[in-house]
Amino acid sequence: MVSLCLKKFSLSLWSLWLSFDNTSGFCGGGKNMDMMRRTVAAIDDINEGFYASAQKRLDNLTKPPGSLGRLEEFARRIVAITENKNPVLDKKVVFTFAGDHGITEEGVSAYPKEVTPQMVLNFIRGGAGINVLARHAGAEVVVVDIGVDYDFGEIDGLMHMKVVKGTLNFAKGPAMTMDDAVKCVETGIIIAEKYAQQGYKIFGAGDMGIGNTTPSSAIAAVITGLPVGAVTGKGTGISDDSLNKKIMAIEKGIKVNSPDPKNGLDVLSKIGGAEIGGIAGLILGAAANRIPVVIDGLISTAGGLVAYVIEPKVKDYLFAAHNSVEIGHKAMLDKMGLRPILDLDLRLGEGTGAALAMLMIEAGLKIYSEMATFGEAGVSNAVIN
Amino acid sequence: MVSLCLKKFSLSLWSLWLSFDNTSGFCGGGKNMDMMRRTVAAIDDINEGFYASAQKRLDNLTKPPGSLGRLEEFARRIVAITENKNPVLDKKVVFTFAGDHGITEEGVSAYPKEVTPQMVLNFIRGGAGINVLARHAGAEVVVVDIGVDYDFGEIDGLMHMKVVKGTLNFAKGPAMTMDDAVKCVETGIIIAEKYAQQGYKIFGAGDMGIGNTTPSSAIAAVITGLPVGAVTGKGTGISDDSLNKKIMAIEKGIKVNSPDPKNGLDVLSKIGGAEIGGIAGLILGAAANRIPVVIDGLISTAGGLVAYVIEPKVKDYLFAAHNSVEIGHKAMLDKMGLRPILDLDLRLGEGTGAALAMLMIEAGLKIYSEMATFGEAGVSNAVIN
Repeated sequence: MVSLCLKKFSLSLWSLWLSFDNTSGFCGGGKNMDMMRRTVAAIDDINEGFYASAQKRLDNLTKPPGSLGRLEEFARRIVAITENKNPVLDKKVVFTFAGDHGITEEGVSAYPKEVTPQMVLNFIRGGAGINVLARHAGAEVVVVDIGVDYDFGEIDGLMHMKVVKGTLNFAKGPAMTMDDAVKCVETGIIIAEKYAQQGYKIFGAGDMGIGNTTPSSAIAAVITGLPVGAVTGKGTGISDDSLNKKIMAIEKGIKVNSPDPKNGLDVLSKIGGAEIGGIAGLILGAAANRIPVVIDGLISTAGGLVAYVIEPKVKDYLFAAHNSVEIGHKAMLDKMGLRPILDLDLRLGEGTGAALAMLMIEAGLKIYSEMATFGEAGVSNAVIN
Repeated sequence: MVSLCLKKFSLSLWSLWLSFDNTSGFCGGGKNMDMMRRTVAAIDDINEGFYASAQKRLDNLTKPPGSLGRLEEFARRIVAITENKNPVLDKKVVFTFAGDHGITEEGVSAYPKEVTPQMVLNFIRGGAGINVLARHAGAEVVVVDIGVDYDFGEIDGLMHMKVVKGTLNFAKGPAMTMDDAVKCVETGIIIAEKYAQQGYKIFGAGDMGIGNTTPSSAIAAVITGLPVGAVTGKGTGISDDSLNKKIMAIEKGIKVNSPDPKNGLDVLSKIGGAEIGGIAGLILGAAANRIPVVIDGLISTAGGLVAYVIEPKVKDYLFAAHNSVEIGHKAMLDKMGLRPILDLDLRLGEGTGAALAMLMIEAGLKIYSEMATFGEAGVSNAVIN
């Protein structure tokens, strides 16, 4: 069983895998959740003293106090998350988790599901939106096959971490087994551990998967408690008729499966997706390693919300990249108390917004690190009021 | 007269100056406005065909149509402004125009006016917010003394273009003469010409000047027609009492001077500022050379509004960097039909927001230039609906 299962993982993860969790029974089907429990237990509260000490430094820079607004917030948060008074974001990576969705049978997407593997290959060749924007932001792109319904063979440039070959149609029953849902989360944790060990300082979370706004809106509805129609949008660009089908499919899926909104794994397994689970795991693993994660749009935020239900502390490690056009997005961000950084009418996913937002977070940190103080610059700091 | 006047300009501008406007009588006090008239006459309407051809290319890239939202808008606009189907933004520059303001006598600012030259020196040494953020955006910073009430001598790293040593207190009479207002605008035009000739592809407009939110709010009130209280904020951070003084000073200045809202130069000379005039000129000169300008916050936008009153076509060459905390900003952007790119609670000025917004504009252009098409990537473009 173990030897068969390991074929799913790239050889480079072999030693990490054994050292990290050689007793968890993960490959045997995720029968226990030791890795997840240990990871969640390692997530600390933020030490708020770091916010205050970072703001003190920001207030001594040659600008009116608070005049760089959210850039100052980003700097404070990076200092507090990393517990490092001199952080640098020199190694940045965006993970694009890819998976397919049985719910596409219900006619919920504008594209055929063949587009998922086609786009994965486009990512690997560097021609997609995320490749362009991650290069612009100085971030690497790591593409993870966690659930694509296609056999990529032994191709390079892809993390081979397939847990399922697409989910099942959740309008008719659970999207995946609880064991597979746990495996997806654990896969994200393994990836977070690997890149933390390699010295990456900030993660972006992105997605690819035809149909995946449907499970994301389903998760939004269940966890926020809002009506399905209030959190379901047109995804890649469906007609009004298809939007109605999408809403009905989600309503049916929720009725058929009765997911428990207090149980992130139950929600994930019943109405979620492999990439959403991978993102949830990435976030848990990042928070356990004090690494900030920039979540992208609707799908990444659904992953964030699953992680938040598992452990609410993760919200302090998250940055919301942007305000998606997808209507369910804001409801999920509000649930976690996150305010988006950008508002550029994006609805592509892949991690594109996360790459752009990293540029703003890094700008805030450079303000903190590189600006002159009033004393250094010989500028008067006497305020007249 | 000419030889005395030329001391105001750096030697590097000498030949440009003579070749560009050796008959205008600018140095004789701006008695005629040949340079400005010629510049305004050179500003063309945008050829809207370029928007359509750029969108056609964007729609053939491997993403759902329109899914990169405003990034696509930025790309379309850069193509149309430059009338170049393959534009690159390889040379970027932010101009920080500095000037002082007699209106500070009315107690309208939280800082003493000595801070203006101190900050100019900070810019030159690279320690200010704009230096950090322009470096982050890959843009140069050019600091222009157009109206600081301080003698910098022959220091390097500063464009010596002083027109006035601070404005007069506009609560008591005109801020400057009409001749000086014209000179300020012409200074901006000269700078735009110089950097256009050097191959710069995009300009940012920024400001430094203690007290300069006061003339900017005055300009906003006069040109938008809104009440002074609706467009006047706390600038660098004044008390409620000082805000009341500021509003009263602006109301008095408008009453005393009766600026004509249809005459940009009249508004500029009576209730404006030297840096605001320089920015207006930069924008006119840029538009005449088909160079996009990113305006920063309240002060740059006041400069933009003066340019817009002189020639409304300039609005098509402008990008609004961000939504300033200053309440008058949105009213001015609305007047010109501009939607801000970022919303990060900034209120520093200097061009800081412009530098950050350049990163987003460039992102849009890279999407346009670097992404693979459906054909190149072998991705299905058949939409199901």
